[in-house]
Amino acid sequence: MVDQMPEVVSAHPQVVIVGGGFAGLQVAEGLDGAHVRVTIVDQHNFHTFLPLLYQVATAGLEPADIAYPIRTIFGKSRNVTFRHGRVLVIDWPARQVLLKDGSHLDFDHLVLATGASAEFFGVKGAREHALPLYTLADARHLRNHLLLALERRDAHPVAERPGVTFVVVGAGPTGVETAGALIELLEVCVRRDRLQIDLAASEVVIVDPVDRVLAPFPRTASRYAARILTRRGVTLRLGVSVVEVLDDGVVLSDGSEIEADGVIWAAGVSGTGTLAESVPGPPTPQRRVPVDADLSVPGLEGVWAVGDAAAVPTGTRDSDVCPQLAPVAIQSGRHCAAQILASVEGRPTAPFRYRDKGIMATIGRRAAVAALPRGPVLRGTLGWLSWLGLHLAYLIGFRNRLRVLLNWTWRYFDWPSGPRLIVADAETADEPHSTGQ
Amino acid sequence: MVDQMPEVVSAHPQVVIVGGGFAGLQVAEGLDGAHVRVTIVDQHNFHTFLPLLYQVATAGLEPADIAYPIRTIFGKSRNVTFRHGRVLVIDWPARQVLLKDGSHLDFDHLVLATGASAEFFGVKGAREHALPLYTLADARHLRNHLLLALERRDAHPVAERPGVTFVVVGAGPTGVETAGALIELLEVCVRRDRLQIDLAASEVVIVDPVDRVLAPFPRTASRYAARILTRRGVTLRLGVSVVEVLDDGVVLSDGSEIEADGVIWAAGVSGTGTLAESVPGPPTPQRRVPVDADLSVPGLEGVWAVGDAAAVPTGTRDSDVCPQLAPVAIQSGRHCAAQILASVEGRPTAPFRYRDKGIMATIGRRAAVAALPRGPVLRGTLGWLSWLGLHLAYLIGFRNRLRVLLNWTWRYFDWPSGPRLIVADAETADEPHSTGQ
Repeated sequence: MVDQMPEVVSAHPQVVIVGGGFAGLQVAEGLDGAHVRVTIVDQHNFHTFLPLLYQVATAGLEPADIAYPIRTIFGKSRNVTFRHGRVLVIDWPARQVLLKDGSHLDFDHLVLATGASAEFFGVKGAREHALPLYTLADARHLRNHLLLALERRDAHPVAERPGVTFVVVGAGPTGVETAGALIELLEVCVRRDRLQIDLAASEVVIVDPVDRVLAPFPRTASRYAARILTRRGVTLRLGVSVVEVLDDGVVLSDGSEIEADGVIWAAGVSGTGTLAESVPGPPTPQRRVPVDADLSVPGLEGVWAVGDAAAVPTGTRDSDVCPQLAPVAIQSGRHCAAQILASVEGRPTAPFRYRDKGIMATIGRRAAVAALPRGPVLRGTLGWLSWLGLHLAYLIGFRNRLRVLLNWTWRYFDWPSGPRLIVADAETADEPHSTGQ
Repeated sequence: MVDQMPEVVSAHPQVVIVGGGFAGLQVAEGLDGAHVRVTIVDQHNFHTFLPLLYQVATAGLEPADIAYPIRTIFGKSRNVTFRHGRVLVIDWPARQVLLKDGSHLDFDHLVLATGASAEFFGVKGAREHALPLYTLADARHLRNHLLLALERRDAHPVAERPGVTFVVVGAGPTGVETAGALIELLEVCVRRDRLQIDLAASEVVIVDPVDRVLAPFPRTASRYAARILTRRGVTLRLGVSVVEVLDDGVVLSDGSEIEADGVIWAAGVSGTGTLAESVPGPPTPQRRVPVDADLSVPGLEGVWAVGDAAAVPTGTRDSDVCPQLAPVAIQSGRHCAAQILASVEGRPTAPFRYRDKGIMATIGRRAAVAALPRGPVLRGTLGWLSWLGLHLAYLIGFRNRLRVLLNWTWRYFDWPSGPRLIVADAETADEPHSTGQ
């Protein structure tokens, strides 16, 4: 196999892919072995499996369970290489990507796969006080915050507030999954680790201006999810929005306030603050890069945009844009690779068309919903098993799959430990090198 | 079992254990179920299995593989509780431990199990530039440093230095184990991840003023270790000491300099900077707490010191003090628990006596040395297997054992991935919440 692969020669066009998420990796995989030189550049040396991020945040999984070194993924490729670095700016006329370390990468084709970032919608105090959940660093930070809040409450009980309260902003899949896992974390911390916190007085509250949870799902799925969440102890505050985030709670649009030990932001993402914003021309409402039907960026020769960073057209009606979901990132990345090859070989490009394969969300142990397009809604244990199977199948790298499977199985039957470690980002700051104290 | 355990009543004496390392946990385990109330206080909510720390530093294991929540260990105990917090100072006359958050813990008995910290012996620049390896935070920091140094060299090749150089200061077990694992990490980064670094021009150098590696071991073990290390590519600079650490290398006592991409400090530990220093009375040369034969601190009623923090007498000859090793911590912790019970029950205390069960060090895959007291020196695969078995047996918590075993087995046969993730402590600092770039 390897011997039949083409030699990499410097005359081959250079493709630079910015971002090693689902979309960027799919582009690279589609170009692996072709007559192009490919460089993936990312500020992290690993790919993050974002669909399981909430598990890291709620101490069910470890960071390494959902992260995988990008170099290792393409370790056997002859024409795909990785460059660890942060892109500062793109010099469009010179066709160069400029990195923070002062170096640059020339490109013939450039793929923007820069993902998205948390969108705070201008809500007062949100950027300062709410805890977003979109990167591995976010997840670690959120986990430390949650566990520290519980330890603090155990050490300093307040008679008038015997429980803890966490607010989750957003009733979409991320919000629902996080709230479900958070309830389980609270239970295990009290029942197993015997933290002195009153469970009955504790609350996980989901707030969303939309009047139902999992709005993109069919109504039957929303009703089922709401019933399970409520039964497990999650409070739903639907039809109201958060107007301000304080350092100890939120203010809602109906004038009420919720005092909270943590506010988790799961309200949505946009291209704000990412490289996508720097592309010349008018951005779409969510600040995603506008693309033509073949995913090329209009007016910029050999520049493409895919995944969350792009306003990917569904390919059915002119104005429709795909949601920012993993399947869109994967499909658009795959399509982009084929169009780059067509363009390199002088063939015409083809329009992208999104194939909706359904959506899924888990609500906790043995409870999930899976909505297939024009098909049935799977729920309960069956929904949970299909959710589990799909995610494990998607996880890149055999070793990670094994680890995650082991952790999940263990947790399903018992959950005796779980990585409930508080590994503060700045733990060395005031205590350089000592063990115990 | 549980029903036969004594009720915890507030009249029972309060034992406060400062530090959740090997020693502290053994004290708590020895008091579990007895007529005392026990509180373990630690600034980390987890126990760290220090013997495998070098594996985390060299990307062979994940932090969660060697860390275990202290609450979970005593989740079923009726009289042992955990308090997450940092001890600032001890008010000896008031018999109170004062915590950083402003609260305090009263004690009838106090156990100092605060461990040790890296000792730089006043070497110029060591504290600023060398990377110690004594806490989980140290290990994560070192790993990020190593992997970033490799990525930097790949991105910015220097013609006159095609390889990388790492210096390990100290030829004891920690230095030898780290150097052996570091050589393996270099190989896997180049062979599998295809980093553009010249292996033949790369070096791992061990520096030690003593003229042999593994000085506490028999000479046959030292010779074997030196042979294996050299064969695998480690350079030994023995009989010279480091007089200065620079940000890009070290200066040696023979006047030579080594330009290096990282300097790892494995030269020794002391009580410097830990709570052990605050105990009234003259400290021992290594700043450990002096203790009587029964491990009580002279002149302070009901105060005990164990493990690395204490100058634990061997119990054989008056002046002999035990080395700072895990078996000493475990045995002294166990002994201390028994003496506290004796003292609570009005019985006389007994002197501690160290039972030397041998020492072990691994040099890499299928190579380790185990020296039994007055017994044979095991080495090679047999030594490695006994090393592996012993460490796995010591690991607290079944789940962690499973994880470590899985990782090790996987690595032994292939090592396709390994957690070579650069998760910088401050990764969120300049890029708040975006995925790819």
